[in-house]
Amino acid sequence: MTNDEMRFGTEILKQAEVLATFTEDAPRITRTYLSKEHRQAGDYLIGLMREAGMTADYDVMGNIVGRYEAGVPFAPVVMTGSHQDSVRNAGKYDGLFGILSPIACVKELNRQGKRLPYTLEIVGFGDEEGVRFGVTLIGSKAMAGNFDPAWLEKKDANGITMRDAINQFGGDADAWQSLDRRGDGHGEVVAFVESHIEQGPTLLDEGLAVGVVTAIAGATRMNVKVTGLAGHAGTVAMTKRQDALTAASEMVLYVERYCRDNENLVGTVGRIACLPGAINVIPQDVEFSVDVRSGSDSVRHSAIKQIRTEFTLIAERRNVKVDAQPFFELNAAPCDDALQKQFADAIAAQGIAPRYLPSGAGHDAMEFPKVCPIAMLFVRCGNGGISHHPSETMTAEDAEIATATLLHFFEHYQPPSFFADKAQRVDRS
Amino acid sequence: MTNDEMRFGTEILKQAEVLATFTEDAPRITRTYLSKEHRQAGDYLIGLMREAGMTADYDVMGNIVGRYEAGVPFAPVVMTGSHQDSVRNAGKYDGLFGILSPIACVKELNRQGKRLPYTLEIVGFGDEEGVRFGVTLIGSKAMAGNFDPAWLEKKDANGITMRDAINQFGGDADAWQSLDRRGDGHGEVVAFVESHIEQGPTLLDEGLAVGVVTAIAGATRMNVKVTGLAGHAGTVAMTKRQDALTAASEMVLYVERYCRDNENLVGTVGRIACLPGAINVIPQDVEFSVDVRSGSDSVRHSAIKQIRTEFTLIAERRNVKVDAQPFFELNAAPCDDALQKQFADAIAAQGIAPRYLPSGAGHDAMEFPKVCPIAMLFVRCGNGGISHHPSETMTAEDAEIATATLLHFFEHYQPPSFFADKAQRVDRS
Repeated sequence: MTNDEMRFGTEILKQAEVLATFTEDAPRITRTYLSKEHRQAGDYLIGLMREAGMTADYDVMGNIVGRYEAGVPFAPVVMTGSHQDSVRNAGKYDGLFGILSPIACVKELNRQGKRLPYTLEIVGFGDEEGVRFGVTLIGSKAMAGNFDPAWLEKKDANGITMRDAINQFGGDADAWQSLDRRGDGHGEVVAFVESHIEQGPTLLDEGLAVGVVTAIAGATRMNVKVTGLAGHAGTVAMTKRQDALTAASEMVLYVERYCRDNENLVGTVGRIACLPGAINVIPQDVEFSVDVRSGSDSVRHSAIKQIRTEFTLIAERRNVKVDAQPFFELNAAPCDDALQKQFADAIAAQGIAPRYLPSGAGHDAMEFPKVCPIAMLFVRCGNGGISHHPSETMTAEDAEIATATLLHFFEHYQPPSFFADKAQRVDRS
Repeated sequence: MTNDEMRFGTEILKQAEVLATFTEDAPRITRTYLSKEHRQAGDYLIGLMREAGMTADYDVMGNIVGRYEAGVPFAPVVMTGSHQDSVRNAGKYDGLFGILSPIACVKELNRQGKRLPYTLEIVGFGDEEGVRFGVTLIGSKAMAGNFDPAWLEKKDANGITMRDAINQFGGDADAWQSLDRRGDGHGEVVAFVESHIEQGPTLLDEGLAVGVVTAIAGATRMNVKVTGLAGHAGTVAMTKRQDALTAASEMVLYVERYCRDNENLVGTVGRIACLPGAINVIPQDVEFSVDVRSGSDSVRHSAIKQIRTEFTLIAERRNVKVDAQPFFELNAAPCDDALQKQFADAIAAQGIAPRYLPSGAGHDAMEFPKVCPIAMLFVRCGNGGISHHPSETMTAEDAEIATATLLHFFEHYQPPSFFADKAQRVDRS
């Protein structure tokens, strides 16, 4: 396929290039919540939404929200979207592709004069990465009724509170509750679907442009402290040592081995510190982090249990102490079976065998099971699957295929019959 | 033995308590080169030396030097001593015992009106630990002709050069060469002996008050860089990772295993750093130190060779890169066989079976093989062998036995016959 033959891919990649210019530290890409660049990106996205035939504006917390009204009255809402913000020194597609691709779908639908049996809402969440205030998923948490108003007092590096930043952006921080889409008042949201770059190498390694996400992995994070006994590196015989670092090294390798032996797990030690940290002193205190993720909560729970047991055995054998404390728990967010099936059909319609895969990373969609069934479409991530980094890549061909898949999904999705019944009742009246 | 029955031990421990009050950060003990506290400790030691019957003063670099003149003319010099300075947050005996114990010997000899067939020089080296200027063994290096005048430009944390500090102390930095005791001009130094707390648990574990040092271990230090590939902790499958930290952990355990399998080796990884160092990012860059020591240079060299080979194999297997660069090499300083034998006889005379053991730590004596044969006496270190720490301990009984051993050594040592001949020639003239 040449660029000229593409309906979506070329244009989406051009739009991503424009959005990459709204950055706080060019030539790097960094765009945090409620920044000047958030405003620039938001204005640009609102422009694209309106041009595509939607009504669009910011909500009270700075999320960018567009609506493509249903073709029938009393129709429910299908929500889609992803985040406008980025990590520091980010790539161009993480988050943004999930906003740009449905806008391209709506533009195409609108061009054909086609309306759907539901209203499609596209959201560009103001914050997912949590860079500015240290709280992640702010936009999706607000919409899923999981926002804690105490966070409004959190300050950024310049001492500005989230409340002040929201209000200065033109929002209304204290109206945060109005965004909650759960329950009767807003019961019309029947599905949340998100398209997103994979941020890993699975599709790349298997030569597939897109795949269906089965679940967003749950995670447990632990802080582990190993306490040995310092000693002179030259004078304490090897057999007399209580070396905290060699003990920790065994633990690091155990996490790796345990998770490697189970296809549904990943485990990472990303941080380690060693005290006193002198070349000629046997390490006394080592602290390290453990991050374990799985699409299955039970697999994750038994992994953590087993890892903690083994840490204790290693410590006993080596005459050191260990304290492994979980400090963060997030349950897996399973994707809805019927919606997965529909994405699989949409992928098959592109001539591609549907590949089901879990998402190890967190996404805005993970907040929405409190509101409605969720689903996610993954798009191949080039360059070895690297993301959160300037070398993140996506091809125009893949953007084209993913957007066509998403459009197929939107065109074929049927809201639950309750709404159809309601609409029919109205029609008869 | 009660305290009242001791000739040396009780008094030496009291003196060590006095010296502990000359500290830069009470209640901790820290005494650096050319500090006010160096002056206080030096004045106190010079007082003890003079009281014991010696002439004593500072030399041009702030070392404290006492002389107990020989009983015969044209006699050679036996040098003994250790360092007055300390690490930060030090114990009370490291270094100081090696100055106090020979002063006690001289005091006893002088009390008996006894002179030796050689002049005994006791040196309190101004710096061994290197805390202030980052160069270790400054005093002994100057005396062994191994001082680099470029070090005079080194600055402490306050920007004061070593040159200025020496001169402000009352020394004469540019006269550093006058301290060189090698060669013809000063060929009279025939032995250097040092008594020192063991700083390890060997004598403690075997229930021995003292032991004979066979060699001061040589050391190789390496800086090791492992380069993997960063990735998202949730999205990269275990089998696809190039994790620099798990690779480094295997290397750390290999150093331990290799050195544990060889009685003549110790190996330590005391420092490790991991980048980017985020809980949710697979480590890309890990740097760690390796410190390997042995009394045998050939054992150490083959260990380093084998460790580097294994590091390469681990890196290849794990698809990461490793660069292990030795940046510090110090050959072992073997103790003189005849002097060892004489220490063994002195120990046996106390009713103790002589235990021969290597010194894993460096000591002032290690600089002196360029000048003369060396020997060391180790004294039991309490509290599990801990040193460089406030919980370093020595009992009065052990100080007593060690000083009696040292006195036996001094009383029985005979200088090489060259000097005896020379003295006889003079006598005949």
